Amino acid sequence: MQTQPRARTSGRSLDHPAPAEIRVEGVLHALSDPMRLRIVRMLEAAGTEQSCSVFDLPVSKSTSTHHFRVLRESGVINQVYRGTAKMSELRRDDLDALFPGLLDSVLTAAHRQDERLGEG
Amino acid sequence: MQTQPRARTSGRSLDHPAPAEIRVEGVLHALSDPMRLRIVRMLEAAGTEQSCSVFDLPVSKSTSTHHFRVLRESGVINQVYRGTAKMSELRRDDLDALFPGLLDSVLTAAHRQDERLGEG
Repeated sequence: MQTQPRARTSGRSLDHPAPAEIRVEGVLHALSDPMRLRIVRMLEAAGTEQSCSVFDLPVSKSTSTHHFRVLRESGVINQVYRGTAKMSELRRDDLDALFPGLLDSVLTAAHRQDERLGEG
Repeated sequence: MQTQPRARTSGRSLDHPAPAEIRVEGVLHALSDPMRLRIVRMLEAAGTEQSCSVFDLPVSKSTSTHHFRVLRESGVINQVYRGTAKMSELRRDDLDALFPGLLDSVLTAAHRQDERLGEG
């Protein structure tokens, strides 16, 4: 159950792979880019869907859109239009069901690397 | 301790990142290619260093060499010349120390995917 009402989704919809279509190679590729890994970590920390506009990424709008699309088309995130906002959230349940422990180990690895490099 | 004698390494040596230089993004990129993931799974199954020549990959020699180089330069495998053979082995201890659970979760994910797709 939703605890907070969400704006209704608008007519436009975006293509997403069904769970059965998600491939581990594609997920690893999506997570292998530093900017995309950063987006995933921010979504994980947020815990709920976020507007793309809240991500203050040091890249152009078109590059940012590209990264979100790679994450969506690989099955890592869901994206939906709500009014004028494009909202993104991790497909944690799908990923955990398909590849148990994978997302957690990647997130932990990224966190430990930040600490190791003094960026944590 | 080695339980079996190995041929001495020859003079040529290959560049490898030190553990502190290994990045999770690079490891994920290395593992995101189907052919490289296949090599890693074969090395994991073998458990010891293997000659590149035992990998019967459906790609050209130069493509195969490229894949092994990406794996080496990202820190996923060690490669060493022994006589005329180039031997490869997983850097499992380094990876497990840097990124606990990551390699195992990727290998498990790949195995489960094969079973799911009827390729197991």
